[in-house]
Amino acid sequence: MSTAKAYAAATKDSPLAPWSFERRAPKAHDVQIEILWSGVCHSDIHQARDEWGGSMFPMVPGHEIVGRVTAIGDHVSKFKVGDLTGVGCMIDSCRECRNCNRDLEQYCEKGPNYTYNSLEKDGSPTYGGYSYHIVVDEKYVVSVSEKLPIEGVAPLLCAGITTYSPLKHWKIGPGHKVAVLGLGGLGHMGVKFAAAFGAEVTVLSTSPNKEADALALGAHKFVVTTDVEQIKPYNNYFDFILDTVSAPHSYDNYLRLLDNNGTLIFVGIPPVPMEMTCFTLLGNRRSVAASGIGSIAETQEMLDFCAEHNIVSDVEVINMDYINTAYDRMLKNDVKYRFVIDIASLK
Amino acid sequence: MSTAKAYAAATKDSPLAPWSFERRAPKAHDVQIEILWSGVCHSDIHQARDEWGGSMFPMVPGHEIVGRVTAIGDHVSKFKVGDLTGVGCMIDSCRECRNCNRDLEQYCEKGPNYTYNSLEKDGSPTYGGYSYHIVVDEKYVVSVSEKLPIEGVAPLLCAGITTYSPLKHWKIGPGHKVAVLGLGGLGHMGVKFAAAFGAEVTVLSTSPNKEADALALGAHKFVVTTDVEQIKPYNNYFDFILDTVSAPHSYDNYLRLLDNNGTLIFVGIPPVPMEMTCFTLLGNRRSVAASGIGSIAETQEMLDFCAEHNIVSDVEVINMDYINTAYDRMLKNDVKYRFVIDIASLK
Repeated sequence: MSTAKAYAAATKDSPLAPWSFERRAPKAHDVQIEILWSGVCHSDIHQARDEWGGSMFPMVPGHEIVGRVTAIGDHVSKFKVGDLTGVGCMIDSCRECRNCNRDLEQYCEKGPNYTYNSLEKDGSPTYGGYSYHIVVDEKYVVSVSEKLPIEGVAPLLCAGITTYSPLKHWKIGPGHKVAVLGLGGLGHMGVKFAAAFGAEVTVLSTSPNKEADALALGAHKFVVTTDVEQIKPYNNYFDFILDTVSAPHSYDNYLRLLDNNGTLIFVGIPPVPMEMTCFTLLGNRRSVAASGIGSIAETQEMLDFCAEHNIVSDVEVINMDYINTAYDRMLKNDVKYRFVIDIASLK
Repeated sequence: MSTAKAYAAATKDSPLAPWSFERRAPKAHDVQIEILWSGVCHSDIHQARDEWGGSMFPMVPGHEIVGRVTAIGDHVSKFKVGDLTGVGCMIDSCRECRNCNRDLEQYCEKGPNYTYNSLEKDGSPTYGGYSYHIVVDEKYVVSVSEKLPIEGVAPLLCAGITTYSPLKHWKIGPGHKVAVLGLGGLGHMGVKFAAAFGAEVTVLSTSPNKEADALALGAHKFVVTTDVEQIKPYNNYFDFILDTVSAPHSYDNYLRLLDNNGTLIFVGIPPVPMEMTCFTLLGNRRSVAASGIGSIAETQEMLDFCAEHNIVSDVEVINMDYINTAYDRMLKNDVKYRFVIDIASLK
């Protein structure tokens, strides 16, 4: 056992505050990681404030973790002390169901064991990356290249894989017209990946002032969706819309922008049921799909792709004690494009 | 011009009653067809009672038409007098948009010209198959084999193509587990085609008494969806659900039956917006899609496939003056599985 300093939410109404807890000593297949950087995901806020229901407190959020291995169990083969590693949204899964057996453990039929606000297989609570260190089975740990600015790598563990996975699954590349709806933590990674894969990328936004940023991130076009004249040429236009908006919005209006066989892919998670009319889907044989993070194997593939193509998240580095202000700013979309906590500030 | 006897709805509140109107003389590319059989589709009721809005009266419904050519225009090349032919839901389209140019005129971006309750390109109203004869551009007419019982062919022009097209588009065949939701006019054709394509077919129904029929139509399994114990083994099970139910229903409950990458395909058209939760889609990377009829080329392909594989609709033949009773029975699901009007009874 070793004590981990952390920041935790004591209840759904509490701001995050310093807290300490015990991490287990590494078991045979475990890796102990000293956390260097921890990204701040919008779902941290949803869960800390119990907006999805079922939150467990005290809660140490954080599932965009990069750090160095400081100890390993007797049977660890993938990592050695000193390795730069990453931990994303999952730290285990049932390892027995069909999805676990086909490298889709993010869709584990019993539900994965998540990095925080969840339980280990032994029933003990999981605590996330807003903490000094973490102990995880090596199977759920990925390698991080030393080539990239590490703080920009942390958000790849959630925002990165969440956008990379669907773009790969639907084989999005040259010849495809892809719209990215929403230019936040997920959206800005979606733009980078879709452009890297060779697609024509259009950012759909309600804010005209995001145009320069969108183009700088790699988008080829920028469309203000509230401008009826500007949006008109894009009816029946896109092959894919990557919908990164987690607030409720009008789906029919965006579905109409899809060409025949076009697919709108949710990666944001609206808190209320989605409503759409069958005629809008049927009018051009459109589809709606949703995709959640990615497997461990695909997360490693994504990190390797990023190292090769020099892709990181655009981040604003903060100290741990800034986290409550960071949450407030995120709720106002005031971040370009991800806060990343310098965990050294916790020590 | 020639007078066509017909049955028409004078208003949305009127029962169908005898009516006569003038059909144009065949133009250069037109085929004049003496109608033999006209299938009765549930959408005939929706439109005759203006349940989708925008209905035009008087209305002569009917878009499952089989008949013989009695006259042709000077430039007709596909057909000669005496040929057995079919007309489905469309009698024209813009012929210029991307969808028309890629054999997807059912998704014509300007909207196809439908067989009834619609307008010709010259602005004159279209009248459907509950009538003595019809005059249609040969491009929108298909050939019907003499091999099959003709009355069972008529419903293929809508119920047949509506289920054939998505099964082909999503390449459903051996190795796929397909559920057909709802065993009516569309559903019974979905079962026949999915089985003919080599998929494992399961009928999902709320009525235990439909089991024998489902199996006789070619289904391999039958599941009563209201029986919690019976449905449990089918969570995460199906690759596709062909949803033929046009009444509002709970989508989340059926989506949960889809395996990873599974797709629920609407071919019924619920009159109210569909509601589903993002988590249900996201939990197993599921999709929801909708498909509308099929192209003229695909309709011909489907009819040829049916002639080769001896597939027709199961029908109950009625006389024209039974139509209002037929509508009442359809609203109680009291038909196996399609009413087809013997148009000789109109003469």
